[in-house]
Amino acid sequence: MERKKRIVIVGAGFGGLAAAKALRRSPFDITVIDRRNYHLFQPLLYQVATGVLSPANIASPIRGILSRQKNTRVLLGEVIDFDCKNQEVILADGKVPYDALVVATGVVNNYFGNDHWREHAPGLKSIDDATEIRKRILSAFEKAERTNNDVDRKRLLTFVIIGSGPTGVELAGAISDIAHNTLRRDFRSINPSTARILIVEMADRPLTAYAPELSQKGLQALHRLHVEVKVSTKVVDISADGIRLVGPQGEEFVPSATKIWAAGVSASALGQKLANATGAPLDQRGRAIVAPDLSLPSHPNIFVIGDLANFSHGRQQPLPGLAPIAMQQGRYLKRRLEEWARGEKASKPFRYFDKGSMAVIGRYAAVAEVGKLKMSGILAWLGWLFIHLIYITQFRNRLLVLVQWGWTFFTLDRSARLITNDDQT
Amino acid sequence: MERKKRIVIVGAGFGGLAAAKALRRSPFDITVIDRRNYHLFQPLLYQVATGVLSPANIASPIRGILSRQKNTRVLLGEVIDFDCKNQEVILADGKVPYDALVVATGVVNNYFGNDHWREHAPGLKSIDDATEIRKRILSAFEKAERTNNDVDRKRLLTFVIIGSGPTGVELAGAISDIAHNTLRRDFRSINPSTARILIVEMADRPLTAYAPELSQKGLQALHRLHVEVKVSTKVVDISADGIRLVGPQGEEFVPSATKIWAAGVSASALGQKLANATGAPLDQRGRAIVAPDLSLPSHPNIFVIGDLANFSHGRQQPLPGLAPIAMQQGRYLKRRLEEWARGEKASKPFRYFDKGSMAVIGRYAAVAEVGKLKMSGILAWLGWLFIHLIYITQFRNRLLVLVQWGWTFFTLDRSARLITNDDQT
Repeated sequence: MERKKRIVIVGAGFGGLAAAKALRRSPFDITVIDRRNYHLFQPLLYQVATGVLSPANIASPIRGILSRQKNTRVLLGEVIDFDCKNQEVILADGKVPYDALVVATGVVNNYFGNDHWREHAPGLKSIDDATEIRKRILSAFEKAERTNNDVDRKRLLTFVIIGSGPTGVELAGAISDIAHNTLRRDFRSINPSTARILIVEMADRPLTAYAPELSQKGLQALHRLHVEVKVSTKVVDISADGIRLVGPQGEEFVPSATKIWAAGVSASALGQKLANATGAPLDQRGRAIVAPDLSLPSHPNIFVIGDLANFSHGRQQPLPGLAPIAMQQGRYLKRRLEEWARGEKASKPFRYFDKGSMAVIGRYAAVAEVGKLKMSGILAWLGWLFIHLIYITQFRNRLLVLVQWGWTFFTLDRSARLITNDDQT
Repeated sequence: MERKKRIVIVGAGFGGLAAAKALRRSPFDITVIDRRNYHLFQPLLYQVATGVLSPANIASPIRGILSRQKNTRVLLGEVIDFDCKNQEVILADGKVPYDALVVATGVVNNYFGNDHWREHAPGLKSIDDATEIRKRILSAFEKAERTNNDVDRKRLLTFVIIGSGPTGVELAGAISDIAHNTLRRDFRSINPSTARILIVEMADRPLTAYAPELSQKGLQALHRLHVEVKVSTKVVDISADGIRLVGPQGEEFVPSATKIWAAGVSASALGQKLANATGAPLDQRGRAIVAPDLSLPSHPNIFVIGDLANFSHGRQQPLPGLAPIAMQQGRYLKRRLEEWARGEKASKPFRYFDKGSMAVIGRYAAVAEVGKLKMSGILAWLGWLFIHLIYITQFRNRLLVLVQWGWTFFTLDRSARLITNDDQT
């Protein structure tokens, strides 16, 4: 009997997991490798950072998701390189051979060459990032309550978010809700609602991925939430004490204890390793440029999907980094890998079916774009709630998230506002 | 008008928080100081360590609990000493003056002079301890799946719990449930139910705080769960590789990757600081010996409650360290402090009303002792569930815990099994 073909999937985000699940009845030996033991529902990560949800509500153990899938093995391990000659994935502590490889390791925060900004302005990519940001936000209010110095207090109560994509806008809205609602009775020396919440955006409008009229609606919603937005403004330096900006009014330094990076991402470091191993070209953001069937043109048995892939066939712009795209690409690979195993070429290229995209800003406020339909306000907000609830991985988590959203909505409370990971003994 | 008397409460565990809440209508200026921003429902901490509950389900922000209590201020800060002459509490970064002081800082793990055991066998006292232990338990299974070496695999699948009080027994039962139920389909190279789970106890029976017949029932329940119990056995060394024991059969080394300390506690370091500042005597476990009204005999305006207090009036043994005792002591202080403020002596001493105690071992298995009534099995288990659910601090958490218990019970799943706090970037 012939040996089953070995498919190795690196990364269990939206793309990798969708591929693994789609292949559940395919005649392959599948190995899913991730350096974390959980799949993360990243669109709700900002709610962990702002104390609404617990990490476990948006993270599911990969093993649990795939445990009944007999043809699939899960490895917790860190991939450090690829050996395409011997068809092996190189882990920090071992090797895993493959016949076909799916790389779906996504993106990391990009500080545009200023990696020392990272410690002062963490990004929001993992559970640990989210609990760190939660700690910084809450600690800033705590320290402001303790200080007797007005200048310090102002710095502690200034929150700067760099970037006005969905994550930046969602974070700003949530911090505003914390300051104006959640904490309004909690302190005796400070008034949390005097906090200044500032979004810095390089482009001339927020939410640039959406139509200009939705940017405008978003801006109005942010203003109602007392969030300041500085457009056409560039970050020139970030330090422990604050952030230096250059905008239409010239240069200024904004003293701020809490800075959060939501500005830009670039391909994970494994993209470069893959390029080195295969000679495949990368775009300027480090993403692998893929063929219409998501393979590398030079290696028809290596596929790149999700945020790490640059797919631009029949499009002016490459597809953006969005969960639905990664998932559709993962599912596409089922047919494609079965064809590949039979030695066939792709019978049809990957095509993205755009179901629209949305971003929430605050209570009752969201923007959504579905084809030519543009929505904002309460309808978009309800749609956002509904879609996100549906897509959460487990039924149990759906229930828990619903309870916590209901609680937060009606009581204005955010109960998961814990300061953990402390260095105290 | 006379200045209101300032009451400072150090520690917002069961004792400190009960005192603060009881004083909500008293004519005092109250300050609650804790180095964490949350009150922890410690009896369920082992369920965080074993992936049933999320940290936020058993931790509530102290500020939130006390936000409507106008006479009370909450400070996040680390108390490092007491100055009883000037009546000030010394923080790492400031001072807080008091007229009456309540010290309720509890206990820490006691390694009996072997503090280097701590890194190899962490105890279970804080959220960070719980997520660290969760990480160790889950990582051991992950590493066992990856290794090709039988000796390593056996060491990785051996879990040793030092101590057989309620926490030790609860942890052992939960790890057994993980191995036999939760993970049973999750791995391809190992069979999780081959894991060895071992409790080491110095005394000649487990659960020594309970009657001998309940120890016997507990032992039977543990055996049904495939938990091994070594009684009359002493730990002589703990290292990264395992644990060295001396028991009735002589000395042996048990190779084990995961060791958990549930053996003994001693008073928090502030007990010694308080003794230095006041000259008050401590017992051999570092607890402050208190007068019948919970004050220090030398300082009638300083009260010690909860696990940090040694209260032995009218008793052969000092009161043990249990949440209900700390809470009753906290509530007792309301009347006592009001009397103290009027310059009166205590009209009646503190008296503990014993509502019984219980420990859960596993599915359907628990032991309970209420006065002369002794219970075990499913009735005790249901009682345990009910009592713990009632005492959780917030309604929201009660609901979330109920959902998650139901889920875990019916599906055998433990969804919060995340490996976080990783050192990976």
